[in-house]
Amino acid sequence: MAAAGRTYWLTEPCRIRREDNSLRIERADSTPVRLPITDIRDLVTFDHVDINTAAVSLLGRHGVVVHILDHYGNYAGALMPAEDMSSAQVVRAQVELTADPARRAAIARSLIAATAANVRWALETDLLDGPLAALDGRLAAAESSEELMGAEGTFRRSAWGVFDTILPAWLRLDGRTRRPPSNAGNAFISYANSVVYGRVLTALRATPLHPAIGFLHADTDRRRNTLALDLAEPFKPLFAERLLRRAAAQKSLRPSDFEADVGAASLSREGRKKVSVMMREELASTVFHRTLKRKVSYEELIHLEALKLVRLCLEGTPYTPFRPWW
Amino acid sequence: MAAAGRTYWLTEPCRIRREDNSLRIERADSTPVRLPITDIRDLVTFDHVDINTAAVSLLGRHGVVVHILDHYGNYAGALMPAEDMSSAQVVRAQVELTADPARRAAIARSLIAATAANVRWALETDLLDGPLAALDGRLAAAESSEELMGAEGTFRRSAWGVFDTILPAWLRLDGRTRRPPSNAGNAFISYANSVVYGRVLTALRATPLHPAIGFLHADTDRRRNTLALDLAEPFKPLFAERLLRRAAAQKSLRPSDFEADVGAASLSREGRKKVSVMMREELASTVFHRTLKRKVSYEELIHLEALKLVRLCLEGTPYTPFRPWW
Repeated sequence: MAAAGRTYWLTEPCRIRREDNSLRIERADSTPVRLPITDIRDLVTFDHVDINTAAVSLLGRHGVVVHILDHYGNYAGALMPAEDMSSAQVVRAQVELTADPARRAAIARSLIAATAANVRWALETDLLDGPLAALDGRLAAAESSEELMGAEGTFRRSAWGVFDTILPAWLRLDGRTRRPPSNAGNAFISYANSVVYGRVLTALRATPLHPAIGFLHADTDRRRNTLALDLAEPFKPLFAERLLRRAAAQKSLRPSDFEADVGAASLSREGRKKVSVMMREELASTVFHRTLKRKVSYEELIHLEALKLVRLCLEGTPYTPFRPWW
Repeated sequence: MAAAGRTYWLTEPCRIRREDNSLRIERADSTPVRLPITDIRDLVTFDHVDINTAAVSLLGRHGVVVHILDHYGNYAGALMPAEDMSSAQVVRAQVELTADPARRAAIARSLIAATAANVRWALETDLLDGPLAALDGRLAAAESSEELMGAEGTFRRSAWGVFDTILPAWLRLDGRTRRPPSNAGNAFISYANSVVYGRVLTALRATPLHPAIGFLHADTDRRRNTLALDLAEPFKPLFAERLLRRAAAQKSLRPSDFEADVGAASLSREGRKKVSVMMREELASTVFHRTLKRKVSYEELIHLEALKLVRLCLEGTPYTPFRPWW
């Protein structure tokens, strides 16, 4: 990727064509935009996109990835250059690190602790201080991954219960349910979590890390990007829990934003649009970064997190999972 | 990838759209073709292609990769599903295997031996029997990778010299030169080798193997797909040496198929078209496979070779690099 370039978000249907060493982005009812290829780090497309081989070749030569989200924000696929960010050195270090039970458990433990702290942060309630302290104690004592998962499960159940005391009746979770979510609140959480997962996978694909070799999630299944699942954990509460809480407080969601069936709920078409706008705005919102001494978007925080893992693998720099500092 | 599906080669400019659970391939001056998604293993596009998000989503959900070659047959990039063929288990085994100097050297040695035998096969001359026997002796005795590479280099120099005795003066190599090729013969070899490399990378991307973790080529460089370079070795003579020899015998190449500069030569536009047709036809030609008991294309042989490496990693099945048996 072009180090100096930036991420371009294409939120409207468009055609991508090549014009010399630039991309020409053509949209209905507006004049085409010309982006010099060297200014582009990556492209994220949110709606119908139509791209031809000439543009693909130019993107490929400059190592620019196009991430394709479908209309509802789900990660549909990516257009990858022939030579991607492969680095045998990083993958070898990643395999070695994750194959060492003690080092792997230490990182799994820190991911669970940070995620729980971020849930506490997102819900802004001292009702979780007790469960959080109990979790920290159990994590320190845990020796097996079953014990780690057990401690996390206990905290999570407390947190979902506390969350229900904040939510209006129709949005209450009544416990976390997936595949399918059993009610509106769970449908919201599932949707937001899948967008976060997509952004984390995007960030990992811009590094030489292998997305399927992780620390916390078991990697025995094929086709599971366990590192992406791991890295998504500490970010999910920032979006799922936090936005649901905010939407409840601001009454910005309505029952008509969901479609409910017996024991299964999903966002309606209108609801998906609404939540996808919420997510996009939240990803673009910025905070001041103390080390970089500049404003960074939540989106960029996810990329920075992936780079922390690269430094862990290449330089042994200790990895401390993301926690909001603001 | 759909196990039962097959590879579709799109050799003309086309538009790819979605129609229910099928792809609709639209070409100028012909009726659209409908391909049920479950019938497709992967798509290889050779010319301008124009694809939209709806089609990308369908491809992604079914794990179908679109390999995009540019007009001249160079690998431009790939459209990859969100969840690709990742398997932590295979990559872990691959890293472990390639990190073991003895096992790594054994595979490097067998790749060099098979490649040399395939050069001998492609040139069909007993003038190489002596150098081949000398190589086998040196490989058996070699202990370092420098010694392996040295033995290979000696054989290769003999082989290029012998090749020149078969070629007409204007196509003679006068030693192998790259970046840039110094003359027409070298330009042909470079072009054919890069197409083979692209097909090998394609085959690897359809497996969980990491293309940058190899046996023979050093993997200290970033952005080098060393496993793809390794696996391309035994196949290159089948295309580069063999087709150049055939083209010389059939007088199917002309000096006007090349553009020559001082110390640098390349295929002309017409020459590239001609050689790209040769390559495509050769990749599609078939031989009877003794174990599978059916005809397979050269293209498929490359895919089968990648699967042999998967079995090596997953099941420890000894890997014997490809040699023509016909």
